[in-house]
Amino acid sequence: MDITAEVRSKGLKARQAARMLANLNTSRKNEALLAMARALEEEKDYILAANSRDMDGGREKGLSRALLDRLLLNEQRIRDMALGLRELVALPDPAGAVTSMWTRPNGLQIGRVRVPLGVIGIIYEARPNVTVDAAGLCLKTGNAVILRGGSEAFHSNLALTAVISRAATAAGAPDGAIQLIETTDREAVNLLLRANEYLDVLIPRGGAGLIRTVVEHATVPVIETGVGNCHVYVDSDADLAMAGSIVINAKTQRPGVCNAMETLLVHEKVAPVFLPSLAAALKEKGVVLKGCPRTRELVPEAEAASEDDWYTEYLDLILAIRVVNSMEAALEHIHTYGTKHSEAIVTANYQKAREFLARVDAAAVYVNASTRFTDGYEFGFGAEIGISTQKLHARGPMGPEQLTTFKYIIFGSGQIRQ
Amino acid sequence: MDITAEVRSKGLKARQAARMLANLNTSRKNEALLAMARALEEEKDYILAANSRDMDGGREKGLSRALLDRLLLNEQRIRDMALGLRELVALPDPAGAVTSMWTRPNGLQIGRVRVPLGVIGIIYEARPNVTVDAAGLCLKTGNAVILRGGSEAFHSNLALTAVISRAATAAGAPDGAIQLIETTDREAVNLLLRANEYLDVLIPRGGAGLIRTVVEHATVPVIETGVGNCHVYVDSDADLAMAGSIVINAKTQRPGVCNAMETLLVHEKVAPVFLPSLAAALKEKGVVLKGCPRTRELVPEAEAASEDDWYTEYLDLILAIRVVNSMEAALEHIHTYGTKHSEAIVTANYQKAREFLARVDAAAVYVNASTRFTDGYEFGFGAEIGISTQKLHARGPMGPEQLTTFKYIIFGSGQIRQ
Repeated sequence: MDITAEVRSKGLKARQAARMLANLNTSRKNEALLAMARALEEEKDYILAANSRDMDGGREKGLSRALLDRLLLNEQRIRDMALGLRELVALPDPAGAVTSMWTRPNGLQIGRVRVPLGVIGIIYEARPNVTVDAAGLCLKTGNAVILRGGSEAFHSNLALTAVISRAATAAGAPDGAIQLIETTDREAVNLLLRANEYLDVLIPRGGAGLIRTVVEHATVPVIETGVGNCHVYVDSDADLAMAGSIVINAKTQRPGVCNAMETLLVHEKVAPVFLPSLAAALKEKGVVLKGCPRTRELVPEAEAASEDDWYTEYLDLILAIRVVNSMEAALEHIHTYGTKHSEAIVTANYQKAREFLARVDAAAVYVNASTRFTDGYEFGFGAEIGISTQKLHARGPMGPEQLTTFKYIIFGSGQIRQ
Repeated sequence: MDITAEVRSKGLKARQAARMLANLNTSRKNEALLAMARALEEEKDYILAANSRDMDGGREKGLSRALLDRLLLNEQRIRDMALGLRELVALPDPAGAVTSMWTRPNGLQIGRVRVPLGVIGIIYEARPNVTVDAAGLCLKTGNAVILRGGSEAFHSNLALTAVISRAATAAGAPDGAIQLIETTDREAVNLLLRANEYLDVLIPRGGAGLIRTVVEHATVPVIETGVGNCHVYVDSDADLAMAGSIVINAKTQRPGVCNAMETLLVHEKVAPVFLPSLAAALKEKGVVLKGCPRTRELVPEAEAASEDDWYTEYLDLILAIRVVNSMEAALEHIHTYGTKHSEAIVTANYQKAREFLARVDAAAVYVNASTRFTDGYEFGFGAEIGISTQKLHARGPMGPEQLTTFKYIIFGSGQIRQ
């Protein structure tokens, strides 16, 4: 089958599945999720065999150890994927909720009811667990999904999709609810980007390059995810012990993720006390420091930070530090270099806390907490499909609710417009 | 100033204005709206003079009478625009509302607060009142706006924007809150479509051609508005008097708008009784009828409807009619040809009413009422910037709330992630 035909036929099938999924009741969807979980565990040998083909290919291609680790599946990881599906069962089903209802003077009763988006396209990179997580979340919320994974994980994704989609269909989900584009040809991505007829939304998950390509070329509505150049601002009124603990956590607890801190901003009044001891603690954790001239006076071992550093999402144990002479200057820095993902202030000052919350334009704005909490599970959404960094539709962690839209249902008794 | 420079400089100014607007309090925004209304009335001669230049140009270009009427301003229309601004004052300000707040087991308190989108770009066609309506609604909701009107209304838009933006600034709104692209060169549109740095969202308002161009070429997130191929389905269990009144209203009360009915679907059981008398009533209103073969047996004067007719949004006194043998067939027709705008069933049957509401995928689904109610004012939103026909972010009438996004504000006491 050529690629255009594949995308068209899967698109049509997904559209049909979406119509059925929209009115599938919650218990049926939950049964499908449980069946998918069981199937993953029962067919683990098949999945692991497919994964080892990808691992062999990855080693041949010379993938980095980090990438190979992301690609790897083992029994534990398969159990984790199954567990993730079972946890979805316990979450409330957002579809069908009437979130408001009101009556107009003419007697029309207007309700706003949550409904699935329809067909969701997901383009993602290396990690095969995304295949299962995304498919599960889409099914839970009544959406059909068309997946396009990275070529490194091709055989793993093929095996995973075969196993879970078969199990879902056997448990009563419509055929076509979960589909994978079964080619590594990049042309498939181009076709998906313009598949307005079949896709209601496209969610790219991956590095900055992938996101940019999608945003540049998609005619399908896109929800951007991911890029996080996050800051912690340590105010002159900060509790410095708390500030130290938050900074170390935000930088080192898991540096490779989008909600990790990349630049630290420190008020000049506390910098001389705060920075030297912080630098020592960070060095112990293996963090490489870069700093503005005033930082380097206090932390001589820091390399000089360039203008580029303020823009950089290191996703690594590297931290840029800048001393600022006011909260105003910190706000200005965040406005200039931030990506509107997660921003934090550490302060004991009531007024400054309020002002920071009001004035920073980002998906998540924190007072006295680590930026690392911007996450579906940490927010209490139970699961997420990514962190949206755009303002339309969804912002921040995209849980089940964010995979729905709404429609108005209007109950009349013969009303006509005057 | 060349066009690139104009878009860049206005974009930057809008971004700065948006930062200030986001924290302008409601009474200040309302004062600006009142000042804008006063200024429109005080400077009506200036505005009317500019409009008469556009009218002269329009006549020279040979614009149709309908288009010239849309372009025309007079004292009454200026008073109406001013009234529209004053009505915005009475509406609640959506920005700043905390729509939910919860506490996590670790003590983090997470709130979801409504905030303006930022900078909104609006590309629209002939009617100059859109300039004022859109500017007012954006200001009310704390958004900066960059307007790009049609070339026919160029002088009118220039005059209107000059008057209202001067008044708004004098009343305390930031400079750059309301700006118009002051060129008729189409290159400006291309630049706006890709102005991701300056615009948070782009809303095209106009015909199908404009919408298609924007969706095809924009990299800025777009909210599609407008195209409505709406249906009324008259069920076998319909009250036929009610059905007749709804059908006549949906087709003739204002045929040129997106929520008007374009195709009527009639159950075969009631068609022989319903269609002949309906046809007579519609003919009296000047409606041209097109029909499927079964319709034409009952209404011989109807022209034959082609496959194309089912796809057509006439926006005129033309109605396509199809006899169907079940609600299932009606649902199938709506799914195939509809644009997910507004769809209605007329029935006295409880189960069919529920099923139609559940199964039709459209922004607004009606039981026993005219499709003409899909409108911000009729829904009780007080004002609207258009009818969204997409599923992301906003669906149906886009009132003040739909011009906001949200951010999460998180109150911690030193929490770090484990």
